[in-house]
Amino acid sequence: MNEIFLSNGNEVEVFERCYRNKLPLMIKGPTGCGKSQLVLSMAKKLGVNVFSVACNEDTNAADLLGRYIIKGGETLWKDGPVTQAVKEGAILYLDEIAEAREDVVVAIHPLTDHRREVYLDKLSQVISAHSNFMFVASYNPGYQRGVRQIKSSTKQRFVTIHMTYLEPSMESNLICELTHLSQGVAKSIVTIATRIRQMAEYQLSATVSTRLLVRAAQLIVDGMDKRSACHIAIAEPLSEDRQVVEALKDLINIAI
Amino acid sequence: MNEIFLSNGNEVEVFERCYRNKLPLMIKGPTGCGKSQLVLSMAKKLGVNVFSVACNEDTNAADLLGRYIIKGGETLWKDGPVTQAVKEGAILYLDEIAEAREDVVVAIHPLTDHRREVYLDKLSQVISAHSNFMFVASYNPGYQRGVRQIKSSTKQRFVTIHMTYLEPSMESNLICELTHLSQGVAKSIVTIATRIRQMAEYQLSATVSTRLLVRAAQLIVDGMDKRSACHIAIAEPLSEDRQVVEALKDLINIAI
Amino acid sequence: MNEIFLSNGNEVEVFERCYRNKLPLMIKGPTGCGKSQLVLSMAKKLGVNVFSVACNEDTNAADLLGRYIIKGGETLWKDGPVTQAVKEGAILYLDEIAEAREDVVVAIHPLTDHRREVYLDKLSQVISAHSNFMFVASYNPGYQRGVRQIKSSTKQRFVTIHMTYLEPSMESNLICELTHLSQGVAKSIVTIATRIRQMAEYQLSATVSTRLLVRAAQLIVDGMDKRSACHIAIAEPLSEDRQVVEALKDLINIAI
Amino acid sequence: MNEIFLSNGNEVEVFERCYRNKLPLMIKGPTGCGKSQLVLSMAKKLGVNVFSVACNEDTNAADLLGRYIIKGGETLWKDGPVTQAVKEGAILYLDEIAEAREDVVVAIHPLTDHRREVYLDKLSQVISAHSNFMFVASYNPGYQRGVRQIKSSTKQRFVTIHMTYLEPSMESNLICELTHLSQGVAKSIVTIATRIRQMAEYQLSATVSTRLLVRAAQLIVDGMDKRSACHIAIAEPLSEDRQVVEALKDLINIAI
Amino acid sequence: MNEIFLSNGNEVEVFERCYRNKLPLMIKGPTGCGKSQLVLSMAKKLGVNVFSVACNEDTNAADLLGRYIIKGGETLWKDGPVTQAVKEGAILYLDEIAEAREDVVVAIHPLTDHRREVYLDKLSQVISAHSNFMFVASYNPGYQRGVRQIKSSTKQRFVTIHMTYLEPSMESNLICELTHLSQGVAKSIVTIATRIRQMAEYQLSATVSTRLLVRAAQLIVDGMDKRSACHIAIAEPLSEDRQVVEALKDLINIAI
Amino acid sequence: MNEIFLSNGNEVEVFERCYRNKLPLMIKGPTGCGKSQLVLSMAKKLGVNVFSVACNEDTNAADLLGRYIIKGGETLWKDGPVTQAVKEGAILYLDEIAEAREDVVVAIHPLTDHRREVYLDKLSQVISAHSNFMFVASYNPGYQRGVRQIKSSTKQRFVTIHMTYLEPSMESNLICELTHLSQGVAKSIVTIATRIRQMAEYQLSATVSTRLLVRAAQLIVDGMDKRSACHIAIAEPLSEDRQVVEALKDLINIAI
Repeated sequence: MNEIFLSNGNEVEVFERCYRNKLPLMIKGPTGCGKSQLVLSMAKKLGVNVFSVACNEDTNAADLLGRYIIKGGETLWKDGPVTQAVKEGAILYLDEIAEAREDVVVAIHPLTDHRREVYLDKLSQVISAHSNFMFVASYNPGYQRGVRQIKSSTKQRFVTIHMTYLEPSMESNLICELTHLSQGVAKSIVTIATRIRQMAEYQLSATVSTRLLVRAAQLIVDGMDKRSACHIAIAEPLSEDRQVVEALKDLINIAI
Repeated sequence: MNEIFLSNGNEVEVFERCYRNKLPLMIKGPTGCGKSQLVLSMAKKLGVNVFSVACNEDTNAADLLGRYIIKGGETLWKDGPVTQAVKEGAILYLDEIAEAREDVVVAIHPLTDHRREVYLDKLSQVISAHSNFMFVASYNPGYQRGVRQIKSSTKQRFVTIHMTYLEPSMESNLICELTHLSQGVAKSIVTIATRIRQMAEYQLSATVSTRLLVRAAQLIVDGMDKRSACHIAIAEPLSEDRQVVEALKDLINIAI
Repeated sequence: MNEIFLSNGNEVEVFERCYRNKLPLMIKGPTGCGKSQLVLSMAKKLGVNVFSVACNEDTNAADLLGRYIIKGGETLWKDGPVTQAVKEGAILYLDEIAEAREDVVVAIHPLTDHRREVYLDKLSQVISAHSNFMFVASYNPGYQRGVRQIKSSTKQRFVTIHMTYLEPSMESNLICELTHLSQGVAKSIVTIATRIRQMAEYQLSATVSTRLLVRAAQLIVDGMDKRSACHIAIAEPLSEDRQVVEALKDLINIAI
Repeated sequence: MNEIFLSNGNEVEVFERCYRNKLPLMIKGPTGCGKSQLVLSMAKKLGVNVFSVACNEDTNAADLLGRYIIKGGETLWKDGPVTQAVKEGAILYLDEIAEAREDVVVAIHPLTDHRREVYLDKLSQVISAHSNFMFVASYNPGYQRGVRQIKSSTKQRFVTIHMTYLEPSMESNLICELTHLSQGVAKSIVTIATRIRQMAEYQLSATVSTRLLVRAAQLIVDGMDKRSACHIAIAEPLSEDRQVVEALKDLINIAI
Repeated sequence: MNEIFLSNGNEVEVFERCYRNKLPLMIKGPTGCGKSQLVLSMAKKLGVNVFSVACNEDTNAADLLGRYIIKGGETLWKDGPVTQAVKEGAILYLDEIAEAREDVVVAIHPLTDHRREVYLDKLSQVISAHSNFMFVASYNPGYQRGVRQIKSSTKQRFVTIHMTYLEPSMESNLICELTHLSQGVAKSIVTIATRIRQMAEYQLSATVSTRLLVRAAQLIVDGMDKRSACHIAIAEPLSEDRQVVEALKDLINIAI
Repeated sequence: MNEIFLSNGNEVEVFERCYRNKLPLMIKGPTGCGKSQLVLSMAKKLGVNVFSVACNEDTNAADLLGRYIIKGGETLWKDGPVTQAVKEGAILYLDEIAEAREDVVVAIHPLTDHRREVYLDKLSQVISAHSNFMFVASYNPGYQRGVRQIKSSTKQRFVTIHMTYLEPSMESNLICELTHLSQGVAKSIVTIATRIRQMAEYQLSATVSTRLLVRAAQLIVDGMDKRSACHIAIAEPLSEDRQVVEALKDLINIAI
């Protein structure tokens, strides 16, 4: 699954234009639709490094910008991933930015407008971004509903694309390519996914990611019974409610 | 009880396939159904070490990944259990992962996908997992209902199996083997457990684990009155409500 | 009151069996019914030390397991009471375990099952318990109702006994023995206690402990007016509501 | 006001008996009724020192027991007020114990029962109290209603007295003695206080302490207009509601 | 505006009597009515320094009393403003005491009664106040309604005065004196303020302070259009609701 | 977009008068209406530096005023941005002051009145502001509604202006000047913005900033399809609700 990225929209075009025009990019989309994959494959294409940060409620500004550490009796400054990306001219990728604390988000605001700079308050120093620097962030709009909201003043700082899952034929091709599963079985697995995704609105807190499908495929290729593989790789991870899991298993047993 | 593991499903097969295919494994199941037992017995079978972490709300990422300590005027890095398991190629077992804080869970996400790596932000270093490394986590879906939920984006990262209590005959065999109790009394104890487990849906916050039964058996073998042993090893630990405890004692007195 | 323990159940037998079979013991019971007394008297009988910890919401795992301290420029490790008890083969007594934070409780889980070990994460070291080590915990089930609950997965780790106040005749004997009060007055005091305990369900947040009775007796032996002694040692500590206190005083004045 | 203490109950007798019998004493009573005065005057009478601690929600166990401090490169232990009182054989007075955090209260529990000892966990050391040591605590039962409650298991550890304001004639005598105000004016001031105290149940969050009366007296002796003195020393401190303040001023203007 | 203080009550008399009789003084009153001005002008009159502390929810006891600092390898004690005022015999002024945390307020209680001392727990040292020391505090009773309340046991420790805005003629005189605005325009500005203050009960969270009026006057004297000056100095700061701001502007346009 | 500032009110006049009269200035207005632009362009015009601080809930007083740092074994003081601006005579700009914690706001109060000074409590030092020092703050009154409120006692310390978006013709001119887009397309983009702003009251948590329009223009000039550019730069950043985004896209498709 490593370096393959398939697109069913204008993600690649928008990413390149943002890179060229030094505009920050936000990628919205459900769990496992390929947001991180897009960033990694574009970085490869553009020939720049990526500094990824998986945001969470405990990440603070110092984790991103850098901090003083004590070594051998000396106090040394150590750049964080943001500072490294800014200096080197890399892609900075803040995954799940909706999870980050406000001070983190505010600290990187100056990187998202015409200033393209970051202020290291511990050093009283302003670092202007390298001309190749690009700021990318992502979040899952469905997941955050009702929980943490990104502030409007942050959302409005990004050119924004909305990603969805791959079209069925592209998704089954991807599974075949990654796992060497037969076309027929791959199509059955994608059919299962499509049906569950259609049910998703009213029953599950999340829906089936491509990753789950690839894992089912891996287990089948390893010799596991097809239905059991789909049960443990697709049905069980989706719900804690036994009745829902049983319904998903029934759906699987019909399709494969 | 040490190294015996009895299974009533395909747990062993799934565990081995996940190990072989480098897939992370999640084990769902009620308190005391043998989740940790499975991990320990499989580790023995596969010939790898286990690094266990009992997750709780105060465990933080540094507890798992490692931290700087000061020794003799020098600042030294000390690997945490995750980093040790990753480097050595052991099984990392996060028990009750639903209890862990978000930063812990997010920090170990890269170990659960194709990257199989962990980022030590304090060292600015990425460690790729040894080829024998396997990630296993567990939680109790009934217990967490309404409290802390594992995020869907985390649950979807694991191949998932659902464990239940042993079948009655297997459970009484296990008790006999572990404690040398007579078959007849062991069966009576399992009958008690089965009845309480059937009542469990509407009366108790948890149900009887095999551990409780083994303890009752131990006390009986030690010479204790059978009913008293079941009262203190089974009835009293299950409820704080005196009326419920008395009802459980009545149920015990009828069965044994 | 120091080393006398009177029992009206099978507490002593259960305690000894748990000690012999290396099973952890939980003691449930109301304030002042003699839970700590039982532990101290059994420790004496068994010839082992006790390490007591009064759990509260601020106790953390380091308080129990140990921590690094800095002394003379050196960083030294200092065992906490749990580690000391585990190494030495003593009784570890966690009083009011329902008050402890989750990380404390989880950290001591491995001491309560067949592993009988504790993991010192700061030292990356596992300590196996001495064969004489015994784990005892206590809590007051009435007091915690609605507040902090012990998790079922913790409660199910302990053989559990339920203690209550002494039978009236035993309680008055205890008072006489401890304070040299006359039998008649001691009986009157126990009568007061019995009546208040019967009222307890619907009026008071807690009920009369034996300790309160002993104190009233001490003050009477010291020469204080009997009623005044009962007022300040029994009635006033039980309520902040003046009407309830006055009712309790009336009840006292009738009985003594 | 310094060292005068007038009593209208058996406070002095109870205090002495508790001191003699090594029993801990709790003093309940409204703001400014003389709780601290009682402790100070009894300490003088008994010839022992007092270590007072004004409890609040930020006081922690280390503030009371002691802590390590770093001085000249060395780590030194410094006893807190509890440890000092315990070692020296003084009165330890915890004022407003209902305000203290749970860890503080639990840490001093062993000083309130037959053990009469304190455990310094930082030193792993148990200190037995000097035979002259006495533990006294106080709180205002009306004030705490609905807010922080002292736990029953704590309240039941103390012999308990309930103090109220002085009888009017004793209160006016005290005012005269302290401020050299004329008897007539002192009586008028006490009349004001009595009336406000009768209103207190339904209108004010607290009532008039003797301290307020003494201050009004001081200002009058200094030459201030009697009514103005009572307005600023009695009416204004009692309420933030202008209508209530005006009503209190009217009441004052009628009485003086 | 620097050192002018105009009074429309007995503030000056009360302040002097409290200073002379060593009584602590509380000043209640709305935002900008001159509470701080009173303290500064009285300090000048009495020839003593003022140590002002603007209380807020993050101020802790160490900020006020002092703390250890490390300098050149040595640990030195540094007095806080309370300790400095106490030693030197200055006025200690705690502005907005209702905002302070409880530990701060409790720590300074002993300075407000006959003891007139402060306990530096970090030094285990009691400092008795210099005979010129005076304790003054202030708060805005309207502002705090429903939010943080000063405890009654604190309020009752202070002789208390209630300040209000200046009478219109005094207020316009003050404006003229401070800004050299013409009498006529100053009167118009005060008329605006009076009308808004009358509306204040039912529409605004705060009302017009004299400071706002002086600023409008300054801008007019600087050459700004009278209405615009009042809009930006009076109307805009008072509300975030555009309709209310427009209503205030209409009121201004009619009056000036 | 760098150094162009267009005004549709008296912002420039007010800013200059406040600078000349040493009055603090508050700028209210919606996200992206040009608040920061105003400050930067005025600083250039007046020939002074700007120290900007993006306030957030984790900014504390030390971040603004300064702190001790340890370097080469020595403890050195390092001025924060407030202290630097005060000493140098620069503009201090606190962006989104409503987000700051109370201690931050209170610490800078003395800079906003006639004192024009800041108290560095860590140094026990008062710094009087340079005569060129000016204090500017901003916030978005719509955004904060219901969340954090600036205290009235803070709001009343500032001369206050209310900024809005540019008039349509000025806004399209600005877009043309910044991006070299054709007049016709620029007008279409502004028309889109105007319509969305009119819808804003009832549908969106924030409205379209000029920044979004400029970004759409940049992408069009770069060669992107006009509608796609407006979709990703305007529609997607405004909402997480797919139906709303689709409605915005329809609105765009009609206008351009």
